[in-house]
Amino acid sequence: MPLVRISLNASAGADRAVAIGAAVHTALVDTIHIPVDDKFQIITGHEPAQLVFAPEYLGIAHTDALVIIQITLNGGRSVEQKRALFAKIADLVEALGIPRADVFVNLVEVAKENWSFGNGLAQYAN
Amino acid sequence: MPLVRISLNASAGADRAVAIGAAVHTALVDTIHIPVDDKFQIITGHEPAQLVFAPEYLGIAHTDALVIIQITLNGGRSVEQKRALFAKIADLVEALGIPRADVFVNLVEVAKENWSFGNGLAQYAN
Amino acid sequence: MPLVRISLNASAGADRAVAIGAAVHTALVDTIHIPVDDKFQIITGHEPAQLVFAPEYLGIAHTDALVIIQITLNGGRSVEQKRALFAKIADLVEALGIPRADVFVNLVEVAKENWSFGNGLAQYAN
Repeated sequence: MPLVRISLNASAGADRAVAIGAAVHTALVDTIHIPVDDKFQIITGHEPAQLVFAPEYLGIAHTDALVIIQITLNGGRSVEQKRALFAKIADLVEALGIPRADVFVNLVEVAKENWSFGNGLAQYAN
Repeated sequence: MPLVRISLNASAGADRAVAIGAAVHTALVDTIHIPVDDKFQIITGHEPAQLVFAPEYLGIAHTDALVIIQITLNGGRSVEQKRALFAKIADLVEALGIPRADVFVNLVEVAKENWSFGNGLAQYAN
Repeated sequence: MPLVRISLNASAGADRAVAIGAAVHTALVDTIHIPVDDKFQIITGHEPAQLVFAPEYLGIAHTDALVIIQITLNGGRSVEQKRALFAKIADLVEALGIPRADVFVNLVEVAKENWSFGNGLAQYAN
């Protein structure tokens, strides 16, 4: 169910991008308990001019290592679950050598009947 | 109003991508009755490493033919309308030779005042 | 907080794309009063076949200059604030020489705890 869009500097390279995707997926499985095969990610590398950010926001400095992760998922997670998800994503992406400050995450919540995983059916609808 | 993002393997080629976009649009017109000129689509082809998915989820097998369709649209459609939309998209995309299992759709719902179709106005707001 | 995705014809060039991004940001600061350093934008140039639109919708003609701006932001803005935002974006993008009719904007609203700006924390959560 989560549809994950990961946007980063193209200079990061494909291998690193895929490793980041794997880290995000592990965090989703570990903290909000999505099934391990529920993995749908779109990764895009961008020229520096195409990823625009201020040098610092809320006291957090950002660099060209910035990774923007937008996750569309079903609503209903608690604030504590979201906090745990953000922390785990940062832990695992930081372990790849990316500054913890450069891990940006946004969640977009939708209703459970808003997904079709194939075959033209709404698999999560009642 | 719907803003449709279609992401697929770049090897599919531009012609196929546009045909898929036309199929999605026809399904939107036929099932949830959007105006035929209410067509706004962003299509992106990706390298295989950039479209990440498990071989199977919920018993549905996915291949490199996977098409991820994310549709932002006004809220208010019933579950039955959403089911009809998913089924029609799958019917029409399958008719292009893409496995029915590889048609992934996600809906993101917004308020009707959240659109400007040009000229700086919120055309759907009361 | 706003995460801004700007999609336009690749022929526009990188400089123009960045200028459009700056215009959108100024409009967000001026009308809904986001902090000036709260700037996160992903800009993508597309081949003409990848940006699909009808020649006219709601009496508004669209051309290859079409700019599609999708802004994910916290919910809670009034309809009047949204109107002001759309108008200001159109004003500032038009000032760059783009037809006012070709400024398309969509807002996606989320909860305030749905953001992590780095460090694995939900900076806007209570």
